[in-house]
Formats: sequence, C-alpha cells, structure tokens
Amino acid sequence: MIKRRKSRKIFIGDVPVGGGSPVTVQSMTKTHTEDVAATVRQARSLARAGCHIIRVAVPDLRAARAIAAIVPRIPIPLVADIHFSAELALEAIKSGCHAVRINPGNMRNWRDVRRVVAAAKKADIPIRIGVNSGSIRPRKGWEVSSKRGDMVTLMVDTVLKYCERFEKKYGFGDIKISLKTADAVETMACCRRIATRCDYPLHLGLTSAGPVEDSEVKSSIVIGGLLSEGLGDTIRVSSTGRPLDEVRIGHRILGALGLERRGLEVHSCPTCGRCEVDLEKIVRAVKKATAHIDRDITVAVMGCVVNGPVEAAQAEIGVACGRGWGWLFRRGKKIRRVPVDAIAESLVKYIESM
Amino acid sequence: MIKRRKSRKIFIGDVPVGGGSPVTVQSMTKTHTEDVAATVRQARSLARAGCHIIRVAVPDLRAARAIAAIVPRIPIPLVADIHFSAELALEAIKSGCHAVRINPGNMRNWRDVRRVVAAAKKADIPIRIGVNSGSIRPRKGWEVSSKRGDMVTLMVDTVLKYCERFEKKYGFGDIKISLKTADAVETMACCRRIATRCDYPLHLGLTSAGPVEDSEVKSSIVIGGLLSEGLGDTIRVSSTGRPLDEVRIGHRILGALGLERRGLEVHSCPTCGRCEVDLEKIVRAVKKATAHIDRDITVAVMGCVVNGPVEAAQAEIGVACGRGWGWLFRRGKKIRRVPVDAIAESLVKYIESM
Repeated sequence: MIKRRKSRKIFIGDVPVGGGSPVTVQSMTKTHTEDVAATVRQARSLARAGCHIIRVAVPDLRAARAIAAIVPRIPIPLVADIHFSAELALEAIKSGCHAVRINPGNMRNWRDVRRVVAAAKKADIPIRIGVNSGSIRPRKGWEVSSKRGDMVTLMVDTVLKYCERFEKKYGFGDIKISLKTADAVETMACCRRIATRCDYPLHLGLTSAGPVEDSEVKSSIVIGGLLSEGLGDTIRVSSTGRPLDEVRIGHRILGALGLERRGLEVHSCPTCGRCEVDLEKIVRAVKKATAHIDRDITVAVMGCVVNGPVEAAQAEIGVACGRGWGWLFRRGKKIRRVPVDAIAESLVKYIESM
Repeated sequence: MIKRRKSRKIFIGDVPVGGGSPVTVQSMTKTHTEDVAATVRQARSLARAGCHIIRVAVPDLRAARAIAAIVPRIPIPLVADIHFSAELALEAIKSGCHAVRINPGNMRNWRDVRRVVAAAKKADIPIRIGVNSGSIRPRKGWEVSSKRGDMVTLMVDTVLKYCERFEKKYGFGDIKISLKTADAVETMACCRRIATRCDYPLHLGLTSAGPVEDSEVKSSIVIGGLLSEGLGDTIRVSSTGRPLDEVRIGHRILGALGLERRGLEVHSCPTCGRCEVDLEKIVRAVKKATAHIDRDITVAVMGCVVNGPVEAAQAEIGVACGRGWGWLFRRGKKIRRVPVDAIAESLVKYIESM
C-alpha cells in the first residue's frame, strides 16, 4: 500500500538495502568493541531479536582490529562507525567490516577521505555518509544558523556535495546516506528534501533521541512518518538503554505500517462507558495465549456488544465482550458464545482449527 | 516550523479547535458514564494530566442524563459519544454537553440525523462526524471491498457526503471530522485525502489501537506523522488500559513536534563502544533532578568526550561524560569539570543560576 521511493540498491554483506528491498532494522552495540566476547554476545542477541545489520563503534585501533574476530562469529553484517580518522577506517576495512560509516566533514582532510573511499572500493563495500546536525562543521559561507530551516538546507547541501565528490572525483557510488538531528521536525524535513534530490538509499533515525520512553514516540513519528510517505530503506531506533528495545521498536514500526509480516495482531478498543468487562486483562490473556501462533491473522477484542461486532467485522476473528460472556465472530459472523474467562483459550482453539 | 493546514475554527465549550489554534489533546472516560462520581473523578484526573477535551460514552438515557451532573463538576468541555439513537443525542444536548459525536451512517434514518443537527444548531454546539472503517455500512453501489484503497475512497466520500448534507440541507457547518481505522497506513491515507477536499478541522486517531505498548508506536506514527505534514487540529491516542497513558502519549507527540512547549528536554545519545559511564543512570538522575524546572531548555547528556561536545553544542546545556568525570558545556563552550556522581546536581545548580 505504501508507494516506496525508488532508490538504488546496495548490499551490506548479503543484506540488500534500497531498490525495493525490505526495510531493514539496524542497531549498534553498546559494548566496548575490543571486548570481543561481549560484543559478539550482544550482536548475537540483537540478531536473534531481528536486527538485520549491526554497527560497532571504532574509537581506536584495538576496536578496529577486534572486528576481524567479531565478524566471523556473528550471523549479520557489521558496519564500522568511524569518526575523524582515516587510519581507523582503513584498519576496519582490513578487518573485514561489511560497510563503513563516515562523516567526511569530521575527517582531517579530503586526502584522508579519498584514501577511505579507495579502500572501500577495493574491498567492494559501501560507505554510509552519515551527517548529524551536531557534527556539521561551520564552513566559510555556510554559517550554522540557529534558524531551523537553515540547518536543513545546510545538512542537505552538505551531504549532496559529499556524494557528488564521491561519485565524480572518486568514481564511487556505493553510498547510503543518513541525516539526523535530535529534532523530529528538522530530521523529517532533511529526509524529505534530500529524497527528491538523489536516489541513494536512506538510513532513517534521530540522534540523541533520549531514553526509551522519549525515543519510542519520537522515533515512531520520524521513522514511521517518513516510511508512511515511502521514504527510507533501513532504520535505526536509537535510545539510551537496552539495545534490544531499539530492535523491538523498529519492528513495531515496520509491522504497524505493513512493511513486514505482522504475525498475529491483536486489535482492541480503548473501552468506554459501554464496557462491562476488564478488557485489558482479556487482551493480555489473548496476547499471551496466542504468542506461539505464527500466522498473519488479525484478532479484534472489543469491549462491548453494541459497536463491537461491527467494529470487529473487518478482522478475521473477533470477540465482542458483554457482561460475563463474549461472542466469537469470524469475519463479522457469529460463531459461538463463550464465558469471559475462556475467551483466550477458545480463540486459540478456534484459530488452530481454521 | 510545521506549516499547518488551514482549517475552519470551531469551539468545544471554550476550547478552540482548528483555524490555527493549538492542537488539543483529547481522551475518553472509561467509567460507566451514569456513575457520576467515578466519571467526574476520572475526567478531573485526565484534565490535571493535560487533557483538553473529554468524551463520554452515552449508551443509554441514564448516561445521557448524567451529563447534566458531570458538566458543572469538571474543568474541561465534554463531548457526548452517540451511536444509533437520535434520542440519546437529544438528551445529551439537553444535559449540556459541549459537542456530540455521531456517525450518521449508523443512525436509523436521515430524519433522525436532521433532528440531532437541529438540536445542536439550537444549542450552538458543534458536531463531530466520526466515521470508523468498522462502522461503515455497505450501501448499494458502495460495496465494502477488502482492497484497502477502496476503503479509503469509501470512507472519504462517505464523510464528505455527510458534510455536504449537513451544510446544504441542514444549514449546519459547525463540524469537525474524524476518519479512523485500525490500520496505520489506511488511516493516514484517509486523512491525507480528505484534508485536501474540505476545510473542516480534523480529529486524529486510530480505532482499536490495542494495549499501550502497541498503541504508543502506532499512534505516534499516525498522529505524529500527519501532524508533521501539517494535518490535524485535535488528537486522541486511544489504548486499552489507563486513560492517563493516552494523555501522556498525546503530549509527548505534540512536544516532539514542537507543537507545544516542551519544558526542559533531555537529549541523550544511545551510547556505544566509546562510552565509559552508565549513561542511562546519569540520564535518569538528570531527568529526576530537573523535573521541577519549568523552562524551555534543552540539556544534552552525551556518553563520550569524543563526539559528545560537538553533538551537544546545539543544546543550551551539555554534558559530555568521560571515565569518572563529565564536562559541563554551555552552547558548546566548556564551563567546568564535575564528577560523574555530581552531574545531575551541578546541572540543576547551573540552570537555576542562568
């Protein structure tokens, strides 16, 4: 249903990004990269949770070299996150990373950038040009202004200049881009603007999105809002805290937009003065009892027998709850009446018999 | 920064909706409306949490009459939620509700609808025409199709036909509209489409969004995404569970988009292999220590002294944490070094001295 922007396809290891490929979920390890055991453990647990691509920080040569030990022990491709230093990028590439993320604007000079690009080209890996508002360096004639519109122009123009240089001077087009700020509106404006001006795959996210309770809403707005407009090829929810939350929220966003299988999805009404049951309890019981069912089914659990049946008619299976009893529906047709306490169990039985 | 769609302005009690008014946050009581004490208690607690407009279910005459006792005891305007029955709407209007929400498609006949509109006109209150995908009745030539695009067309055309009838036949234009489904993409498509075809204020939300953990992401995408495009005048996050969560998430969405004062906002990085401190702990301490500060300030709490200072430079106040110590910054300029355990306290002192 979402008409996605046409972007060029690149590969991070064997994972395609862009060109109509499924939107991928990324995260970043929060361990010290040189602690190979801890980094491998965290990357594996993120992969199990559905992380498709993992990024690791490369603050020094030890971290860069550790990549050689990490890559063969994890099931997903690894991106080396580089700041400032061409040497670290070169070492990470030598260690077998599947992509590097750099911000050309914080490297020492263009000669260094050119060396990194040449190494990536030789290793046949892509580069993510990742520009954050905070890391934009004011340059002559490009004063960072406090006005938001100007930051958007500055960031978009900066990234496009980098890309042009990579393509024309270095003959390198294996590029993915990201433009992030800590502000939702600004980040969305950057991504909307640049999307119309190039065909590079877009990596979506925010910087400094805060702890999970703040990041969840902000990331859903930015990443989900842009994806709903067809923009974005790979996403990273960032939050201060457990990296598993990042992956969980990332998949929730994709699921909500139908950009990946949703599995069994429970819809439930907010309840109101018409409700005669503890609907939240019933919903939790249904979610728990159906957790093992790996089919794309929508189950609507509604709090009343007045609107419930009609509202639930679009779901494959519905339950409209009255006092003590719930009516089981299939595509709006009554199946049977079950006691409230038996709703979860009856639903599972019914779905398994379908 | 968000360029909002131009909509006509209506008033729910003394609260303006549309026409450039601040976006309002709504919720709905989950008590039995006729239990006046419980309903008043819940409405008041929602108002304290920032709910601007409250809706109550009116499933029967007792509920409709209870409105007369509720309205004078709560500090925010009340919308009566009516289904099927003109009598309930008339009774709710007589009881002093500040608006009624109806779905003309589920009322008995047009005569009944006309009676409700006439009463609203006489009482000088607006009507919300609220159409949910589940409550759309298939009509001759308007078959509900399983194809999503068709549901969008059906809902948008249906609402516009209702509005046209209200305006032309009944001479009533004091209208607000909502189009909700349980699907994020479908709901966004409905709202985007209808926004270009009328100037009625838009009430944003989803139906059957599920329990809070599902609703938070889905509602943020839909409500936040649409608001970021300039659409929407009033919002309701619905979730199965505590109504306070609905209001909390609603305000988070508005805050993230700069559509209302954010107060003190803490930005924090997700941390990575460069981090030498327990940043989540520091962020929680900072949030707790600054909770009483009622000023619009951004505080960036960054996990390293490498990117931290640059990334934090756009915030008024920043802390870049190294092993054991943090550097306090003001607009990117170093102020002083403080021990990690004293960061929260130092920040508060510094902000209070600003």
